Amino acid sequence: MGSLVSDFLTMSKSNNNSKEFNPLDPEEFREKAHKAVDFIADYYKNIENYPVLSQVQPGYLRNRIPETPPDAPESFDTILRDVQNDIIPGMTHWLSPNFFAFFPATVSSAAFVGDMLSNCFNAVGFNWLASPAATELEMVVMDWLATMLQLPKSFKFSGSGGGVLQSTTSEAVLCTLIAARDRALKEIGVQHVGKLVVYGSDQTHSTFMKVCKIAGIHPENIRSIPTILEDDFSLSPKLLRKVVEADVAKGLVPLYLCATVGTTSTTAIDPIKHLADVAADYRIWVHVDAAYGGSACICPEYRHFLDGVERVDSLSLSPHKWLLTYLDCCCLWTKNPNLIINSLSTNPEYLKNKINDSDSVVSYKDWQVGTGRKFKSLRLWLVLRSYGVTNLRNHIRTDIQMAVTFERLVRSDPRFEIVVPRRFALVCFRLKQFNGFDSAYTELLNKRLLDRVNSTGRVYMTHTIVGGVYLLRFAVGATLTRDHHVVAAWELIRETTDALVKECYA
Amino acid sequence: MGSLVSDFLTMSKSNNNSKEFNPLDPEEFREKAHKAVDFIADYYKNIENYPVLSQVQPGYLRNRIPETPPDAPESFDTILRDVQNDIIPGMTHWLSPNFFAFFPATVSSAAFVGDMLSNCFNAVGFNWLASPAATELEMVVMDWLATMLQLPKSFKFSGSGGGVLQSTTSEAVLCTLIAARDRALKEIGVQHVGKLVVYGSDQTHSTFMKVCKIAGIHPENIRSIPTILEDDFSLSPKLLRKVVEADVAKGLVPLYLCATVGTTSTTAIDPIKHLADVAADYRIWVHVDAAYGGSACICPEYRHFLDGVERVDSLSLSPHKWLLTYLDCCCLWTKNPNLIINSLSTNPEYLKNKINDSDSVVSYKDWQVGTGRKFKSLRLWLVLRSYGVTNLRNHIRTDIQMAVTFERLVRSDPRFEIVVPRRFALVCFRLKQFNGFDSAYTELLNKRLLDRVNSTGRVYMTHTIVGGVYLLRFAVGATLTRDHHVVAAWELIRETTDALVKECYA
Repeated sequence: MGSLVSDFLTMSKSNNNSKEFNPLDPEEFREKAHKAVDFIADYYKNIENYPVLSQVQPGYLRNRIPETPPDAPESFDTILRDVQNDIIPGMTHWLSPNFFAFFPATVSSAAFVGDMLSNCFNAVGFNWLASPAATELEMVVMDWLATMLQLPKSFKFSGSGGGVLQSTTSEAVLCTLIAARDRALKEIGVQHVGKLVVYGSDQTHSTFMKVCKIAGIHPENIRSIPTILEDDFSLSPKLLRKVVEADVAKGLVPLYLCATVGTTSTTAIDPIKHLADVAADYRIWVHVDAAYGGSACICPEYRHFLDGVERVDSLSLSPHKWLLTYLDCCCLWTKNPNLIINSLSTNPEYLKNKINDSDSVVSYKDWQVGTGRKFKSLRLWLVLRSYGVTNLRNHIRTDIQMAVTFERLVRSDPRFEIVVPRRFALVCFRLKQFNGFDSAYTELLNKRLLDRVNSTGRVYMTHTIVGGVYLLRFAVGATLTRDHHVVAAWELIRETTDALVKECYA
Repeated sequence: MGSLVSDFLTMSKSNNNSKEFNPLDPEEFREKAHKAVDFIADYYKNIENYPVLSQVQPGYLRNRIPETPPDAPESFDTILRDVQNDIIPGMTHWLSPNFFAFFPATVSSAAFVGDMLSNCFNAVGFNWLASPAATELEMVVMDWLATMLQLPKSFKFSGSGGGVLQSTTSEAVLCTLIAARDRALKEIGVQHVGKLVVYGSDQTHSTFMKVCKIAGIHPENIRSIPTILEDDFSLSPKLLRKVVEADVAKGLVPLYLCATVGTTSTTAIDPIKHLADVAADYRIWVHVDAAYGGSACICPEYRHFLDGVERVDSLSLSPHKWLLTYLDCCCLWTKNPNLIINSLSTNPEYLKNKINDSDSVVSYKDWQVGTGRKFKSLRLWLVLRSYGVTNLRNHIRTDIQMAVTFERLVRSDPRFEIVVPRRFALVCFRLKQFNGFDSAYTELLNKRLLDRVNSTGRVYMTHTIVGGVYLLRFAVGATLTRDHHVVAAWELIRETTDALVKECYA
C-alpha cells in the first residue's frame, strides 16, 4: 500500500513538472486582476466620453464575434481590447453621470472591493457550517441596516425576526408570498388555493403580478386596485377595504397585500399604517416593497414614510438602487422567519451536520428559492463601514437636493409642468398642452422630446404613463452625477424644446 | 431663466470646491481595488495554511463586531485587517485544495476578472435597450456552450430555441416548470391545478420538491420514484411508466419530469433517452438537471451521458460547479422560449421602447423570476476565451483522473469498499462491515472516521445515505487540488482508520 502511494506521488511530481493548466495561479491572478482594475478605473474616468444610451442596432454583436468558442487560449489583452471595441459601444452606460433613466443603480469603491472579497472566498453559504462567517455576517449586517431604518426589534435577529439578502424584490415577494400562502392553505386546505386573493395597486411593480402567478395564485384573484392623480397615485385604504369586503362576501380568502414606498413610475407612497389597519381586520400578510424609497428612510426626516411598519409582516429594500452596493442586493426582513422556513426548507442527507441539526443556527438556504448562495453581505458591510451612516445620509440628501434643483428649473419654464409631487430624487414632468393643440398631440410632443434628447447620447431619461398621462421621468442619483450634469441636462431639454416648439408653429 | 441656470452652476461650482462625498472617485477606486487584488492573490497563495473546515463555534462573530454600524468612515486597511482576523477564521475554505466536500465550486482568474468587468458596467439588462451588449453577448455565449455540448439546433438561438443564465438550478427548474404548468392549465383550466403531477427520483436534488411546492403543485402530486443500488440509483424508465400510468388511471395529469445527469449524492445518471420515450407518450415536459455532470459532456468521451437530449424540453448546467466561473452561473437552454416568455413576461409602460416592442430582440427579464439582472455572460465568455475548449476538456479529465487515483487507493485497502461506480470526479466509499460488528456499528465507525478527518482541518469531506447505506463522499475538483493533495488526503484517512480500528478491537 505504501508503495502504491509513493508511486502516485512520483507520478504526481512528474506531472507537476510539466507545464500544467492552473487557472488560479496566484501570480497570474494578480497580474490579470491588476490590469482589470486599471481598465475599470480608466473607464470610470472617461465614462462621460461615451453616449449614455447605446447607439447600436439589434444584432450588432453577432457579426463581431465568432460563431464558436476558440479551441486555444486567447490573451487577456486581446479580450480587453474586444471589450473596449465590441462591448462598450453596445453598453447603455448606467453609471454615467448623465444617466437619469429608470432608477439609478448605484455603486461605490467599497462595494466593488466587497464583491471582490466575496468572490475571493467563493463560499457557498447554504448552511452555517458551509460558511459560518457568511451566515453570521449577513445576520449582523441585516440587523445594522434595520437599526439605521429604525425598524422595530420584531424584524431583527436581536429580537424575534430576522433578515436575509435576496437578489431582487421579485424573490423577496415570492418567498414571503409562499410563506403566507402555505399558512393559509394549512387552514383552508390546498384544494382551496383558488380562493386566495392578493392585493396591490395599479402602481405596484409589474413583478408582483408575475410573482403571484408563479406562486399559483389564480390570475383572476390578483387585485390591481386603481389609484388616482388626486391621491398622488397612492393606494387608498378605504378602497382596499371595499375590495377586500367584496372578496370576503364572495367567499374568497384575502391573503397578501403588497404596499409600496416609492413606486417605480412616480415614487408614490402607499400609507402603510392605514393599509395595515385594514389588513389586520382580515389577517392579510402585508409586505412593504421599499426597493427605492426605503433607502431614504435612513434619514430621520424621511423615516415617516415607513410609519406603521411595526404592524406589517415583511419589508424589502434594494440597496443596489440607492445605497451604493452594485447589483444585486435586496434586503428582506420579516417578523415570521419560521413561516418562510416552513415553506422553503429542505433537509437532504448530504447537507446534514450536527450543528445545523441542533437548530441553533440559521440556514439561509431555507430563506430563499435556491440552495447555493454567495457570501452576499460583504458588499453591504463594506459600504456601511467605509462610508458610515452620516455620509450615507448626506448622499441621499445630496441626490434629493439635485432633484430639487431640476424641479425648480422645470418650474421656471412655463411650457412645462410637474405632474406629481416630487418625493425623493425622481422628477415627473412634461410639456404642457399648448394652445390650439389637443392632448394626443401633447403626448406626441413629449415623446418626440424624449426621443430627441436620448438620441443625442448626452442624456438618458425614460417615460411612463399614469392616470392616462404620458410623462417624462428624470431620476437623479447615478453615483457620479453632480449639479452641473443636472443643469446641463436641463439646458439640453430646454434647447430641444425650443426647436420642437418652433417646428410646431412653423 | 438663463440667470437661474447660471445661479445653479455657480452654486454647483462652489459645492464642487468643498470636499465632496464621492464614493466612485476613480483614483480612490484604483487604490482600493489594487489593494484588494493583492489581498486576494496572497490569500490564494496561502490558502493551505488555513483549516479547510472552519473551527469556530456558532455565534463566534457577534462578539467581534459592534452592534451598530459606524457613524464615521473606517479605512479600508482597518476593514481588511478585520477580514483577516474575524472573517477568515469563520470561513470554510471552499477554494482550498483540500476541499473534497459536496461538489466543488470552481474558479479561475478569467472568471474573476470577468466578474470585475460585469460589476464595472453595473448594467441592469432587463431588456435589450437597457444594455444591448449584455443581451447579445449572453445569446452568443449560450450558443457557444451549446455547441461545446453538441446540443441540437433546437436549443440554440441560431436554431429555434435559446439559452439564458440563471443564478441556480432551482430557478432554472422553476422557470421551466411554470412554463409547463401554464401550458397545461390553459388546456385543463386553472381550477384543475390539483391534477398536475410531477416526477423525479428519490435522488433528484432536494430543491426539486421545494420548487414544485413554490409553483403550487400539490405536495401529494410530487412523485419521488425510488431507485436502487442495483441500478446505480438511476431512475428506471419502466418504473416511471408504471407510476405515470397509475396517475393517469386516477384521472391525474402528468406534467413534468426532472431527470438528472450526475445526482448530488452519488452522481447517478438517469437514462434521458428512455425516460424521454415514456414522457413523449404522455406529453410530459422533460427537464434535464445536469448541474454537475453536464460540464463533463464537453469531452467527447462523456457526451453519451446526454444521449437523448434532443428529445427533452430543457436542460440546465451550472458552470459554477465545474467550469471555473465562480458563483453563481447556471445555464438553462430550452426548445420552447415562447412558453417561458408567455408565463414570465411583464410589460410595464416605463420599460417600453420601440425596439423592444418590435419583438426583434430578446428581453431576458421575461426568461427569469426577477426583473433586474447583471451582465452575467462576461464571466463565462472570459473563461471560454481565456482557456479555450481544449484546456477546459483537459481540466475535466485531470479532475477525473485524480478521482481515479483516489478510487485505486481506496480499493488497495481491504478495509474499504467503493459503494457505487465512480462516473465523474466523485468517489463514494466506506469502511466495510468488520467481522463481529453489525451494520449500525459500521455506520457509526464511518461517521467517526468522517468527524475525525474533518476535525483535523486538513481535509473536508462529506457524507450521504443512499439505499440505507451511509457512505463517504470524496469529491475531487477544487481548482487548486493536485495529485499530492489527493494522496495526502488518503493517507490521513488511512491513518485515522488505523487508529479507529485499534480502538475497535481494544
